[in-house]
Amino acid sequence: MDQFMRMAIDEAREGLAEGGIPIGAVLLSPAGQVLGRGHNQRVQQQDPIIHAEIDALRKAGRVGNYRGCTIYSTLMPCYLCSGAIVQFGISKVIVGEEETFAGGREFMESHGVQVENLDLAECKELLQTFIQQNPDLWAEDIGEL
Amino acid sequence: MDQFMRMAIDEAREGLAEGGIPIGAVLLSPAGQVLGRGHNQRVQQQDPIIHAEIDALRKAGRVGNYRGCTIYSTLMPCYLCSGAIVQFGISKVIVGEEETFAGGREFMESHGVQVENLDLAECKELLQTFIQQNPDLWAEDIGEL
Repeated sequence: MDQFMRMAIDEAREGLAEGGIPIGAVLLSPAGQVLGRGHNQRVQQQDPIIHAEIDALRKAGRVGNYRGCTIYSTLMPCYLCSGAIVQFGISKVIVGEEETFAGGREFMESHGVQVENLDLAECKELLQTFIQQNPDLWAEDIGEL
Repeated sequence: MDQFMRMAIDEAREGLAEGGIPIGAVLLSPAGQVLGRGHNQRVQQQDPIIHAEIDALRKAGRVGNYRGCTIYSTLMPCYLCSGAIVQFGISKVIVGEEETFAGGREFMESHGVQVENLDLAECKELLQTFIQQNPDLWAEDIGEL
């Protein structure tokens, strides 16, 4: 598997082990260096904003500009994270799946972001198992509680 | 002036006094209680995500659901903040101005968010003076560095 998607899945599993929502993300520079990696921490930090992509962006700090950057996520980014990607001008998004949650693909593509779905069974199983066991936590995460 | 826009402007001025980008926001419950208030802290916290609306949402913590909530901001929310508003299902946005930055009005309205612009000279002067003195900080904030 792509090493950066592997890293994003490792982040998701770290979140799961902490009792959190298992979604992970990795931000890469245009040259392919890891600028930041993170996972959803809504439960752990009691902070509604810390989705996986947001955590990776915070860990990366003030990058300055994101032209040519790629963000990996185990799941298609929601509108919060899609909004960050569009506003910051991140060029490419590679996701593990978009079956569990359709997210903001059209919105991102309409703003020129390149979106690729690797459609990985491992990502779907990880999140769908969590959702079956914790439906309210998931509903809260996507604003549908 | 509307007491909550006054509060948002006070937040923006607090940010300015800290050396930060002067934008403030206040999140209200459906009953009109302040759930969280905050200001842009990218410079102060070296964190690209902490726009004013995001700071107010973080201060409010895990609200659960945002149906019927209103967010005030001294400026039309950018796509990051518009994405949070749409994803979390916040019902209404009241802004101080949209002249300095057009933001995500259409995107929010297309998702059923009610958007109102108070068109206040005080908000424009506060931010435009800052931008004239700190063009690079502003460009970084909106992903145009």
